[in-house]
Amino acid sequence: MAQQQQSLSDYAEYEHFVVTQGPAPFVAHVEINRPTKLNAFHEAMWHELRAVFGKLSTDPDVRAVVLSGAGDRAFTAGLDVTAASEGGVLASADAQDLDPARKATRLRRYIADFQECISAVEKCEKPVVCVMHGIAIGLAIDISCCADIRVCAKDTRFAVKEVDIGLAADIGTLARLPKVVGSQSWVKDVCLTARDFGAHEALAVGFVSQVHESKAAALAAAFKTAGLLATKSPVAVQGTKELLNHSRDHTVEDNLRYTGVWNAAALQTKDVPAALLSGLQKKKPTFEKL
Amino acid sequence: MAQQQQSLSDYAEYEHFVVTQGPAPFVAHVEINRPTKLNAFHEAMWHELRAVFGKLSTDPDVRAVVLSGAGDRAFTAGLDVTAASEGGVLASADAQDLDPARKATRLRRYIADFQECISAVEKCEKPVVCVMHGIAIGLAIDISCCADIRVCAKDTRFAVKEVDIGLAADIGTLARLPKVVGSQSWVKDVCLTARDFGAHEALAVGFVSQVHESKAAALAAAFKTAGLLATKSPVAVQGTKELLNHSRDHTVEDNLRYTGVWNAAALQTKDVPAALLSGLQKKKPTFEKL
Amino acid sequence: MAQQQQSLSDYAEYEHFVVTQGPAPFVAHVEINRPTKLNAFHEAMWHELRAVFGKLSTDPDVRAVVLSGAGDRAFTAGLDVTAASEGGVLASADAQDLDPARKATRLRRYIADFQECISAVEKCEKPVVCVMHGIAIGLAIDISCCADIRVCAKDTRFAVKEVDIGLAADIGTLARLPKVVGSQSWVKDVCLTARDFGAHEALAVGFVSQVHESKAAALAAAFKTAGLLATKSPVAVQGTKELLNHSRDHTVEDNLRYTGVWNAAALQTKDVPAALLSGLQKKKPTFEKL
Amino acid sequence: MAQQQQSLSDYAEYEHFVVTQGPAPFVAHVEINRPTKLNAFHEAMWHELRAVFGKLSTDPDVRAVVLSGAGDRAFTAGLDVTAASEGGVLASADAQDLDPARKATRLRRYIADFQECISAVEKCEKPVVCVMHGIAIGLAIDISCCADIRVCAKDTRFAVKEVDIGLAADIGTLARLPKVVGSQSWVKDVCLTARDFGAHEALAVGFVSQVHESKAAALAAAFKTAGLLATKSPVAVQGTKELLNHSRDHTVEDNLRYTGVWNAAALQTKDVPAALLSGLQKKKPTFEKL
Amino acid sequence: MAQQQQSLSDYAEYEHFVVTQGPAPFVAHVEINRPTKLNAFHEAMWHELRAVFGKLSTDPDVRAVVLSGAGDRAFTAGLDVTAASEGGVLASADAQDLDPARKATRLRRYIADFQECISAVEKCEKPVVCVMHGIAIGLAIDISCCADIRVCAKDTRFAVKEVDIGLAADIGTLARLPKVVGSQSWVKDVCLTARDFGAHEALAVGFVSQVHESKAAALAAAFKTAGLLATKSPVAVQGTKELLNHSRDHTVEDNLRYTGVWNAAALQTKDVPAALLSGLQKKKPTFEKL
Amino acid sequence: MAQQQQSLSDYAEYEHFVVTQGPAPFVAHVEINRPTKLNAFHEAMWHELRAVFGKLSTDPDVRAVVLSGAGDRAFTAGLDVTAASEGGVLASADAQDLDPARKATRLRRYIADFQECISAVEKCEKPVVCVMHGIAIGLAIDISCCADIRVCAKDTRFAVKEVDIGLAADIGTLARLPKVVGSQSWVKDVCLTARDFGAHEALAVGFVSQVHESKAAALAAAFKTAGLLATKSPVAVQGTKELLNHSRDHTVEDNLRYTGVWNAAALQTKDVPAALLSGLQKKKPTFEKL
Repeated sequence: MAQQQQSLSDYAEYEHFVVTQGPAPFVAHVEINRPTKLNAFHEAMWHELRAVFGKLSTDPDVRAVVLSGAGDRAFTAGLDVTAASEGGVLASADAQDLDPARKATRLRRYIADFQECISAVEKCEKPVVCVMHGIAIGLAIDISCCADIRVCAKDTRFAVKEVDIGLAADIGTLARLPKVVGSQSWVKDVCLTARDFGAHEALAVGFVSQVHESKAAALAAAFKTAGLLATKSPVAVQGTKELLNHSRDHTVEDNLRYTGVWNAAALQTKDVPAALLSGLQKKKPTFEKL
Repeated sequence: MAQQQQSLSDYAEYEHFVVTQGPAPFVAHVEINRPTKLNAFHEAMWHELRAVFGKLSTDPDVRAVVLSGAGDRAFTAGLDVTAASEGGVLASADAQDLDPARKATRLRRYIADFQECISAVEKCEKPVVCVMHGIAIGLAIDISCCADIRVCAKDTRFAVKEVDIGLAADIGTLARLPKVVGSQSWVKDVCLTARDFGAHEALAVGFVSQVHESKAAALAAAFKTAGLLATKSPVAVQGTKELLNHSRDHTVEDNLRYTGVWNAAALQTKDVPAALLSGLQKKKPTFEKL
Repeated sequence: MAQQQQSLSDYAEYEHFVVTQGPAPFVAHVEINRPTKLNAFHEAMWHELRAVFGKLSTDPDVRAVVLSGAGDRAFTAGLDVTAASEGGVLASADAQDLDPARKATRLRRYIADFQECISAVEKCEKPVVCVMHGIAIGLAIDISCCADIRVCAKDTRFAVKEVDIGLAADIGTLARLPKVVGSQSWVKDVCLTARDFGAHEALAVGFVSQVHESKAAALAAAFKTAGLLATKSPVAVQGTKELLNHSRDHTVEDNLRYTGVWNAAALQTKDVPAALLSGLQKKKPTFEKL
Repeated sequence: MAQQQQSLSDYAEYEHFVVTQGPAPFVAHVEINRPTKLNAFHEAMWHELRAVFGKLSTDPDVRAVVLSGAGDRAFTAGLDVTAASEGGVLASADAQDLDPARKATRLRRYIADFQECISAVEKCEKPVVCVMHGIAIGLAIDISCCADIRVCAKDTRFAVKEVDIGLAADIGTLARLPKVVGSQSWVKDVCLTARDFGAHEALAVGFVSQVHESKAAALAAAFKTAGLLATKSPVAVQGTKELLNHSRDHTVEDNLRYTGVWNAAALQTKDVPAALLSGLQKKKPTFEKL
Repeated sequence: MAQQQQSLSDYAEYEHFVVTQGPAPFVAHVEINRPTKLNAFHEAMWHELRAVFGKLSTDPDVRAVVLSGAGDRAFTAGLDVTAASEGGVLASADAQDLDPARKATRLRRYIADFQECISAVEKCEKPVVCVMHGIAIGLAIDISCCADIRVCAKDTRFAVKEVDIGLAADIGTLARLPKVVGSQSWVKDVCLTARDFGAHEALAVGFVSQVHESKAAALAAAFKTAGLLATKSPVAVQGTKELLNHSRDHTVEDNLRYTGVWNAAALQTKDVPAALLSGLQKKKPTFEKL
Repeated sequence: MAQQQQSLSDYAEYEHFVVTQGPAPFVAHVEINRPTKLNAFHEAMWHELRAVFGKLSTDPDVRAVVLSGAGDRAFTAGLDVTAASEGGVLASADAQDLDPARKATRLRRYIADFQECISAVEKCEKPVVCVMHGIAIGLAIDISCCADIRVCAKDTRFAVKEVDIGLAADIGTLARLPKVVGSQSWVKDVCLTARDFGAHEALAVGFVSQVHESKAAALAAAFKTAGLLATKSPVAVQGTKELLNHSRDHTVEDNLRYTGVWNAAALQTKDVPAALLSGLQKKKPTFEKL
């Protein structure tokens, strides 16, 4: 699919992600582009992920983003364990001599940096629709929890895999997944056992909101949603994303106060009269860039 | 249905809401009463909504409230956009000359007052069962999120409509909806796209807990639930509502502490021995007013 | 089932709970053991519950716990109301003369102590799988909300029963249940009405994650899950539990920070290389005690 | 002093508070006006206090408020205990028959309403300078903690008096005083012992920021400060008050986020160029009303 | 001084603390009793500290507590480093073989238990006046921060000493000290440098509220304050302590809500009319035990 | 002073800040280096500030940082208003056509970026001693509130100047200052009036912890403190800074939990035995880099 799309020139510098113009205006398509390795991530990749989404966040030509994985086999198989064990944070010559407190400092800095890279997907001001297929384990869950809307192909095999390599997931799954779905019994089950779960289970618990026959169908659906979002007022859409993200981590009272201050500026937009007028005229409104 | 009910005289002064005695003792029925305009709200209406629920909150003759919309077509179509554009916060003669900061101040005050009016439904100490049918968009979602239990007719057409008029919902939907249902993927979908969703989708995600064949059937079910609540100890029921509302916005630890202090007084009620005794005697207990 | 299991000698002192070695290594089985009284709780029992789970929490021979109720009829019928009314906090000779403020102090201390006993199940560092069957009302909900994973037999009859005896649940249900399942409309319904709900309704809202044909089948499934957990790295499993519990009560930002600090030590475990190696060698890893 | 000031006609309806035009433009002077009773408060007075400050909050002719007590003897002696015991919340005919839980409900509603009235001083969008003299006990501390800046005459006798009448202060002192001054050892001392403290002790711990020779001198100083505030941009001053109040109850991170959203509108004011220009021209800027 | 006091028989079992009846009714005097070792703490001592203050917390014969150190030389020199290095958490035979993650688990449990012991002083429902003299370093700061009121002799030598033995203070100083005094510049200075500071500096920053000529004078002053507290309504005093402790860790809004619920029961005490009556009659009121 | 110091080669690339080796080992000296413009900041400067402190944060050769301003006249006069008005966020050609909502978006992004740059001083893992002299207004307060310890020359003239240019301070002063000093009456006074205050007033309220005769003397004192910090265990010092920063924004309970997890790794450092041993041997310990 990506081949048919036009590459966005401002994003040509990136190596591990292909960023193309989606089929609808103002829609960007980001593909994790390491299909020969099941789109597994090494350190340079998550740094690039931060850069890509940081740029999309304020790019006035982008109003919605679709994120998917290149190739047929995987959204992403998560962390590239081989790369991690070879070039990891404690791989330098001097690291073996460090006492556990000093190793802990290196690890803490490393994790914080890694977390910040993945959080860039959540902090992107534009809504992100994540399309998953094939293998979607480990980091796949961390990343997709940062997206706003999740859809998948029916062949997707999910797992919060970290326990199986001896660690607690630390890049965001344990922070966000319990707030993404409704059943804590299920969250604890999949996080503690590291067991696989499929597309229909993901739909039943509300982790994804749509399941499609194939990756292509899932992508098409995501482009449709993203395309729809891109026709709306960007002031309204981006405000809604921000206020919902704020809502998750604040009390109702606090969110109402923040919302009032936010909309005190946002309601002064020309988009409101434009939207109202086009509603009366049954025409499609046009909105200025943001 | 409302016609057969007896109007509650203390509430006769209200113009936009009809408050009647429900079919069971201690149950009040509040109807949004502007059916010719699809029960759309103008400013006087939300101020009256606050007054009505403020009064119900401490009315000792009321132990449960059913809230519905008059007429066949709509629970409420939300904000009366025409009224809003004519007499809104920035409609006064001097408003055009204000700089954006001063306009923002007016808007902020206006939103805060509006929010407070709708929050009165949540702050009402008595449980509120909300019955929705027909059109239930925009403000309908803000209001129903403040109710305790939501049921609907199968013809209900819901939408978080605000994005379509160029703004982020600011009267409570974005603050409360993510805490009312389980799937954040779904919440973001309906809030960002402003798309319609029906009764069965609402049931599946947990937004409503019952779907009925018709408005009449939904109302009957709501009266049954409200009637049941009204037979219980009001000390127990109102305490449970307060503690659940506190729970949403606090940690488990904090809620346990607050609960202990709350029940230190509440457990001294005569309702506990009355309920225990009537349980042994298989009789219906009677509880003092509250 | 419990008969076939070997009693754990360190736990022989406990009177109201039978603690046996589960069918898999490192799995402990705790049974509420008052079947003639439907496993109803009196004060000595919840104090013992705290002691049992406090001990399990740091017992290096235990990596997962299954909690169930002895006998065919009930997980637990909750508080033993007769015992409570006879020997309760306000039953002493002098209590009748206390003014309401002094009674409130006694009640508050009593509730706080009771809450702390039940919270011991949640604070247990090892994952707890709760198996429910038959009657599971009142305290049954408080206790099971503290477990990590809930499964049940199809004959289970649940109820948040407190309102029916004139009080708001104060031992944890109102604090935890809204964070355990997704639909607040449903939570308020069952907490305010005190109505029964069955196994399939519990599954649909996500309160339990599995329903089985019988208590025996549910127990078997729980042992299977617990057995699986016990084969994993205890550093990973116990870390995951702690981070998920922290997540519930903190913002994403705060949880990420806490997680980074947690894993800065945890990642220095030998379990990571052990798990990676055994993954490559397709062998079962062995992990040191914790 | 108040005699020389012109009464503000919009505030003539109030009975217990005299509101006059201060000596400088845009400054309002509010006097507690029951000097024959040491300005002690009964219920009608605190309801009126809420009304007065609610009106001042959005009155475009007011940019700063000075609050003081009429007469020579007292800022306020606090609650009028006689009035409270005669017409209090539990004084009605039926109240004696209420069980302690129902009495608690009445008391809770009463306290919440009382708290909200006093908090109106804090919620007033305009800065409030509180001038204390003579007796300033009980409610005097609750009220003055809601002001922004506190000054006093050297004869002021302060006390957190509530413990001496058998209760814990519940109208705001225990919530706000620990956040108003630096030493918790001192806060606990004065709150637990109910002992008197004088003007110089109040200054030393930072409760007041100025001590003056007499009430007249303190009032003059307050008018000078208020007059100065009233010459500044009201967008800047009122924004600063709001952001400082938000800061007290939020983390630094949260306050920075809120501030960014607040100033996104506020910085679009014409007051910024007006202030910059007048700074260059060494002229006094004029600002539009707010 | 302690010699002249009568030992409280219920506390005779304790080995490391002498608990005597203070010179005024309802006042207990707790002395850290290891003067030959500068009252330095080993593990059995902090466990006993928890037990002592847990018992005092609900002892109806105690309304105020004075805490001091036996002997002339030290309030306490903090942790007994020799004991700690010999019998510490990692001193067991198997500890050397643990990987850093498993050592971290042991340390975390050990610290949590230690923290809980010291926090018992803060959680004691009765107000605690802490009297310091001589050496007061390390754990002395952790403990005294848990007291309500701090006084000292002028010879006291304070230090947040932990940095000097290679660690960050972890038993409460860093959590509480910044909330006990006003200047964060000073807090960071003494915590980061581990430098000594004297009584007058402690007074100037508000860490202590009184400095006396000698230990005896400080003790006498503490007994006077404690004696005064013990003449007041225990409902009022203990409520004030609880509400101030809650205030520190909650927003103003939250504390007001909690206070309203607390006082809904507390105001039903007979102490209020008793206090009011004795105020009119100029007599000393008598209050029931609590 | 800076001339005599050796420039740190790794920091030679920075243009607006001179980073030299302080007089003691492991101490870095950062000077704001635009003395001809009173060290006023333009946008490139705050971006560079972030880079400098980000680098210092993990530089193993740095254990403490002294921050001061070059020249005799000013620590910093704050924002370079001329530069801001010429090249500011709304200065681009298209900005005039933006509606207020879109301008607000640009401003919000700009403020967030600006805040993040200044917060880098607080986030620097090494303790920062800030030395102020001469003019220290506006941004000077924002920046110095991010430092750990503040000292100043007696000629320093401070002001929270923002209100005088028509805006509320938005780069951190209103978020941090109320948590840096004890008296909120004073904080509101200086923030609302924008008045000057001097070194001794700053000392009295606890904003600075030392006042010296001259800039040179203040710098010498800062180097002495920083030099002392640099002789301590960096594990202990940096842990203490982190835990104190966490403490400010969290409850005591939360901070104790975080501290336990932090020290579970940190206590495994070799610095503890090294410090203990050198204490016994009366020798200066040497600590590994961090």
